[in-house]
Amino acid sequence: MSLIYVLNGPNLNLLGKRQPEIYGHDTLRDVEALCVAAAGDHQIRFLQSNWEGQLIDWIHEARDEAAAIVINPAALTHTSVAVLDALNSFDGPVVEVHISQVHKREKFRHHSFVSLRADAVIAGMGVAGYGAAVRHVATLIG
Amino acid sequence: MSLIYVLNGPNLNLLGKRQPEIYGHDTLRDVEALCVAAAGDHQIRFLQSNWEGQLIDWIHEARDEAAAIVINPAALTHTSVAVLDALNSFDGPVVEVHISQVHKREKFRHHSFVSLRADAVIAGMGVAGYGAAVRHVATLIG
Amino acid sequence: MSLIYVLNGPNLNLLGKRQPEIYGHDTLRDVEALCVAAAGDHQIRFLQSNWEGQLIDWIHEARDEAAAIVINPAALTHTSVAVLDALNSFDGPVVEVHISQVHKREKFRHHSFVSLRADAVIAGMGVAGYGAAVRHVATLIG
Amino acid sequence: MSLIYVLNGPNLNLLGKRQPEIYGHDTLRDVEALCVAAAGDHQIRFLQSNWEGQLIDWIHEARDEAAAIVINPAALTHTSVAVLDALNSFDGPVVEVHISQVHKREKFRHHSFVSLRADAVIAGMGVAGYGAAVRHVATLIG
Amino acid sequence: MSLIYVLNGPNLNLLGKRQPEIYGHDTLRDVEALCVAAAGDHQIRFLQSNWEGQLIDWIHEARDEAAAIVINPAALTHTSVAVLDALNSFDGPVVEVHISQVHKREKFRHHSFVSLRADAVIAGMGVAGYGAAVRHVATLIG
Amino acid sequence: MSLIYVLNGPNLNLLGKRQPEIYGHDTLRDVEALCVAAAGDHQIRFLQSNWEGQLIDWIHEARDEAAAIVINPAALTHTSVAVLDALNSFDGPVVEVHISQVHKREKFRHHSFVSLRADAVIAGMGVAGYGAAVRHVATLIG
Amino acid sequence: MSLIYVLNGPNLNLLGKRQPEIYGHDTLRDVEALCVAAAGDHQIRFLQSNWEGQLIDWIHEARDEAAAIVINPAALTHTSVAVLDALNSFDGPVVEVHISQVHKREKFRHHSFVSLRADAVIAGMGVAGYGAAVRHVATLIG
Amino acid sequence: MSLIYVLNGPNLNLLGKRQPEIYGHDTLRDVEALCVAAAGDHQIRFLQSNWEGQLIDWIHEARDEAAAIVINPAALTHTSVAVLDALNSFDGPVVEVHISQVHKREKFRHHSFVSLRADAVIAGMGVAGYGAAVRHVATLIG
Amino acid sequence: MSLIYVLNGPNLNLLGKRQPEIYGHDTLRDVEALCVAAAGDHQIRFLQSNWEGQLIDWIHEARDEAAAIVINPAALTHTSVAVLDALNSFDGPVVEVHISQVHKREKFRHHSFVSLRADAVIAGMGVAGYGAAVRHVATLIG
Amino acid sequence: MSLIYVLNGPNLNLLGKRQPEIYGHDTLRDVEALCVAAAGDHQIRFLQSNWEGQLIDWIHEARDEAAAIVINPAALTHTSVAVLDALNSFDGPVVEVHISQVHKREKFRHHSFVSLRADAVIAGMGVAGYGAAVRHVATLIG
Amino acid sequence: MSLIYVLNGPNLNLLGKRQPEIYGHDTLRDVEALCVAAAGDHQIRFLQSNWEGQLIDWIHEARDEAAAIVINPAALTHTSVAVLDALNSFDGPVVEVHISQVHKREKFRHHSFVSLRADAVIAGMGVAGYGAAVRHVATLIG
Amino acid sequence: MSLIYVLNGPNLNLLGKRQPEIYGHDTLRDVEALCVAAAGDHQIRFLQSNWEGQLIDWIHEARDEAAAIVINPAALTHTSVAVLDALNSFDGPVVEVHISQVHKREKFRHHSFVSLRADAVIAGMGVAGYGAAVRHVATLIG
Repeated sequence: MSLIYVLNGPNLNLLGKRQPEIYGHDTLRDVEALCVAAAGDHQIRFLQSNWEGQLIDWIHEARDEAAAIVINPAALTHTSVAVLDALNSFDGPVVEVHISQVHKREKFRHHSFVSLRADAVIAGMGVAGYGAAVRHVATLIG
Repeated sequence: MSLIYVLNGPNLNLLGKRQPEIYGHDTLRDVEALCVAAAGDHQIRFLQSNWEGQLIDWIHEARDEAAAIVINPAALTHTSVAVLDALNSFDGPVVEVHISQVHKREKFRHHSFVSLRADAVIAGMGVAGYGAAVRHVATLIG
Repeated sequence: MSLIYVLNGPNLNLLGKRQPEIYGHDTLRDVEALCVAAAGDHQIRFLQSNWEGQLIDWIHEARDEAAAIVINPAALTHTSVAVLDALNSFDGPVVEVHISQVHKREKFRHHSFVSLRADAVIAGMGVAGYGAAVRHVATLIG
Repeated sequence: MSLIYVLNGPNLNLLGKRQPEIYGHDTLRDVEALCVAAAGDHQIRFLQSNWEGQLIDWIHEARDEAAAIVINPAALTHTSVAVLDALNSFDGPVVEVHISQVHKREKFRHHSFVSLRADAVIAGMGVAGYGAAVRHVATLIG
Repeated sequence: MSLIYVLNGPNLNLLGKRQPEIYGHDTLRDVEALCVAAAGDHQIRFLQSNWEGQLIDWIHEARDEAAAIVINPAALTHTSVAVLDALNSFDGPVVEVHISQVHKREKFRHHSFVSLRADAVIAGMGVAGYGAAVRHVATLIG
Repeated sequence: MSLIYVLNGPNLNLLGKRQPEIYGHDTLRDVEALCVAAAGDHQIRFLQSNWEGQLIDWIHEARDEAAAIVINPAALTHTSVAVLDALNSFDGPVVEVHISQVHKREKFRHHSFVSLRADAVIAGMGVAGYGAAVRHVATLIG
Repeated sequence: MSLIYVLNGPNLNLLGKRQPEIYGHDTLRDVEALCVAAAGDHQIRFLQSNWEGQLIDWIHEARDEAAAIVINPAALTHTSVAVLDALNSFDGPVVEVHISQVHKREKFRHHSFVSLRADAVIAGMGVAGYGAAVRHVATLIG
Repeated sequence: MSLIYVLNGPNLNLLGKRQPEIYGHDTLRDVEALCVAAAGDHQIRFLQSNWEGQLIDWIHEARDEAAAIVINPAALTHTSVAVLDALNSFDGPVVEVHISQVHKREKFRHHSFVSLRADAVIAGMGVAGYGAAVRHVATLIG
Repeated sequence: MSLIYVLNGPNLNLLGKRQPEIYGHDTLRDVEALCVAAAGDHQIRFLQSNWEGQLIDWIHEARDEAAAIVINPAALTHTSVAVLDALNSFDGPVVEVHISQVHKREKFRHHSFVSLRADAVIAGMGVAGYGAAVRHVATLIG
Repeated sequence: MSLIYVLNGPNLNLLGKRQPEIYGHDTLRDVEALCVAAAGDHQIRFLQSNWEGQLIDWIHEARDEAAAIVINPAALTHTSVAVLDALNSFDGPVVEVHISQVHKREKFRHHSFVSLRADAVIAGMGVAGYGAAVRHVATLIG
Repeated sequence: MSLIYVLNGPNLNLLGKRQPEIYGHDTLRDVEALCVAAAGDHQIRFLQSNWEGQLIDWIHEARDEAAAIVINPAALTHTSVAVLDALNSFDGPVVEVHISQVHKREKFRHHSFVSLRADAVIAGMGVAGYGAAVRHVATLIG
Repeated sequence: MSLIYVLNGPNLNLLGKRQPEIYGHDTLRDVEALCVAAAGDHQIRFLQSNWEGQLIDWIHEARDEAAAIVINPAALTHTSVAVLDALNSFDGPVVEVHISQVHKREKFRHHSFVSLRADAVIAGMGVAGYGAAVRHVATLIG
């Protein structure tokens, strides 16, 4: 059985509290439970940080420990070449998840540096997108 | 129980035969079976056309008959305001699916008119993206 | 007495049913009646299609049969060089009509290929724009 | 019965004298007569100025006195946020008229600040566009 | 003691009457009182015009009479190189004030020619922005 | 001996009748004769449609039946990703022909989606361009 | 009485030492004193960090503890969607302050992500801008 | 003998007083004398206004009275379609003069609406540019 | 019988030696032979230079001596207004040839200054493009 | 008495022969005579080349021998940073001359690298522009 | 003898392990040794962080302790105004190093904020670029 | 032992004489000596030309004679696709050198065609950049 890293970017610690009309009422704890359920026999390491450096360190850590990464880079999606470069150093499958349908929001949310690396992208399915992403990588890593 | 329309745009009739390094080896018949399995108690109407006008007619038909639409607009994603306008006339959930990860391909494949209407977008999961989309709308329409 | 073609592009068959806050409650049959009334002694051939190829065929037909064209190209306004080229082959007056005021809507609705050929453009007068267009071409063709 | 303001921007005092191949041979007096005829029971106040400040003052005046505005902003169409802001302070219907088909002319004539407020836009009908505009607002204000 | 010019551009004569959801309920007379109060021992000359030429003349006049200029150029902010050039000929401090937070409004309101000269810019504080601007220049001119 | 598909896009049925100052006086029948003569021992299947869907179907058909495609996509050159994708599924040589020198015409005619796939492009040789194209693919397919 | 957070972004710890021709000679301690004086009966929590993650954490903290935020995001103004998203989760008034007049500096300093959320923006008043900002939010929160 | 209009736009009344490092020390009176001297047997009507409307009125007046126009549109060069349209109604030669070399200044000074009509453009010769312009039109009108 | 100039731009002296995967294995001598064969009764003057000035001189020379020009401007295609201007001074037919299909290469190779003058353009036919070009001009000059 | 270099770029050797509707009927010899006459007591060295390298060498030579440069860079105006850099090494006055009014021609002729160095620019005065330029530098160098 | 700071940005801790086809096989320890050797009598402080805030703190520290900075900002090169502003506060020489030749990679790697401050930039020399950079600053600081 | 070509583009013959505040006081002879010293056992062929064609010829010559090229293309950096194409035909290492830090200068100096081929780029090290470049290629060619 393998380990799947589920990484969450800035402000996602507020999930369920911040702008529920956009992001819904589930909290990050609910999302973690949903990921564990979706992972089947695989294990989940579920992490969140508002600090880009911390996210990069975790991606480096995943190089040694994880078989796949599911990442919701939040605001860093649009601005961080450093997160992209970190993911470029990871060999397993990477799925990018956005809770909201970013293409219907402000223009600057339409571009994603992470999509240049991600094997798949899911947007607008709400927190259910995490479940679909985890199920997908679980299938890929067998 | 409700009906879900699964619509496929130009050239998808060649699925499994055209550029398998991009689109994989499954045929459209395989995808239909996959959608039926994912739909649970809901019914699937699975259609493909190379003709934009036909796709618009089917979306109009779905206004009366379907509870949700899953659509892979293929090349029309990037060029058809007419498909967008047709979808704008539909009230139920709409999910846009792309087999390949379009954001890693040519620049003109990065913009989607359909995303201006779609409630969710899935790209790069291969034909499994259809399954995830059908499951998602099945949940939404209860 | 002459014949005036009134051509309607994709999704206009839904007029009165689709997004009435934008397009109003009149149906395409109401618009046809309105055009006949505005045409005076001239005759109207009133047509709608969701298929670009059909619209082009009708414009070619108009080369032999009609003295003027009133066209609401709908979504094709913004994307179809083929409709523009067809109209470029027509010698009589051409008036482009939009029910809504397109310049107050999304940016991609601000550009019109058809305007490169149209002798006049009317937008935002609701279905009354058809009446004004027919009256105008009726005057021009005497 | 109500009052309709018909406002004309810079250089329109030369109508009939300036570039008749673009603007035709009618003078502004002819246009005023045409508007009075089109207004039916409504009254017309017909004004022209080469001075942006004067046009803004008249729009402010119209807030108290007029039920509708028909405006041909001429060159100010493309450059005046101040005229747009003045029209934004007016509650009744506003129709923007251009004698020539501006979308077939130089690129800088394709953008209109006034269109961001106008309820309808008419271009390329020659001076007959004024008549159509007046008839339209006359209908709207009953 | 010195004189401070407070200049107001097009449409600000409607302040308190036009779009109060954007500009608030205070009138220009209220703003003048607020400026006088903020000026301390300094004097205020408070002016408004819808005419760009008038504003330029007043700025030239200020060269001889005023120690500082506070200006709300309104719509001319975005379009007038002539007002910018006039301010470039003035040696004392210049503060640009906007009642609304222009950067949250339409894109064409994000660029300011006047900012290329202004020593300070205040936006979004409502009419209180005038008070802050006057207090600031009062401090600068001692 | 092999079969060469010669495909013609929208409005080319009017060849010889439409804008002869741009497109010349030869009809599509003349062009077909010219292609047959140029093909030597190879066979020609010569087709035209105003309907994008029909052209895509013919390209799919060519996958099984033809050794090469010569295509004048007309207006679809500039707008159709769907035709490009269809041609991407064809393995033999593809030559794109334009009767007029498109680079001397309107700017929107300078970009070609089809050129992203075409092995060769010929523009501005009039209908003689078809002959050169057929001769070229005849050589390539031996 | 309420608490006002005053947040300072990267490099502002060098205030008074770095490029005094742009930023002046006051230190951050001087600015804190100035804010306390301007706050009247309200309390100030005055913070600085070169770490984006730290600033986001403080904004989250402010959700529970502060009635208003005054923020000089410094370089993050132009690059951080994450700070914007954090501020979007805060309900009270937000004022953005820049010591220098950013619109007279390099082009990349003209765009502000934070301005998409800020209720007011002050630039170019030197450190006195902090005082004006604190006074403004103090008035708003009563 | 003919009359030559020499028109000067906003802020040129300050010539010799404003920014002499850019515009030099000659006053507008000096320039008038220089023009009279250069005109030979022709007459000069030398005018300046800060009001765009006034300049347009003078250009209209020139239609009846002048054989040529020399114009330094100053800031209106870059922003006024209305001045361009006025000049488009004038049949004689038009020369555009700039005292400074505008192409070495800010980017927004590089574009000139007036140049779309002017028969000749002179920039950077200081006030001597007026002399060269007058001599040139004097030659043209014989 | 007439003379046809065949001109070759920079680096084409290396043909057959440089990047054969792009340009093929034929040398410039082979191409000259191919042109002579294609010219029928017409004569060929076949020239190459890495010096733009030399190419311009030859084009000037062709004004007196040649009936047509076939030119492969190589890198100058994309950068030389001077070659365009030289060709603009030539009255006979001009055909532009590119050995590779430039529209499938780097973006900066998609724009051609020479195409603004060329009567026909051929790209991607390998050295056979020279033959087609010579045959075409031979037909045109009879 | 000083020496003035008058330099002419590519294709100007054809002056009077090439496109007289744009460039007029005077030859370069006529222009030289005109320059000598305009130079008064100063001497003229009048040169033309189609070779950019030659023009740069002459500009270097002028560093030692000339007091001023008048240059018509022709097509190099728009493309040559090398000519700009050469002129940047020259200390005396530089005047850029264009025979035609380049701002009314193709868009790519609107940008001039040479204008970034030239002290004055004259366009559209025909060959008389040379005379005005020479007179201007003659005045400047006394 | 002086101290030289050698700073390394995000993901460089993986050097030698990540994408060796781009970055080579040397590790960061190898690079440190190489820098010490190149520094001669100067001392090296060699640091790496994935955290932008940490890098800014080190640059501030260098203000007091170092005579020069050599920096490989990695991904922050393209996105961090904050690092640029920190370097702007440093008075000694700054050299920017990139191991790969960034101008041959993705477009977003072509722009560098750090280059706006760096005295020299070296790209594509592999880790040898560090040696060249250290030798260069060692010479500059004597 | 191998031969290294060191090529210098337009205006570099003026090195030490032209704009020493940008380019320093060393002459090209000094640079040659510096290169010879840096080359160790390798030989240097050191050349300069203001003629692009000459530089291309030397690059072709280097194909047969040199093991590496160090090139300072000067102004041709930004405009010459022909030099790029010539370098593309060379198989050994290529290093691009700029004496000044081009990224701190005008925007048009930020783009380099030569960088699309160069294996390494050095800018802003003054003439010392030549030494670093020669040492680097000397190492590469052993």
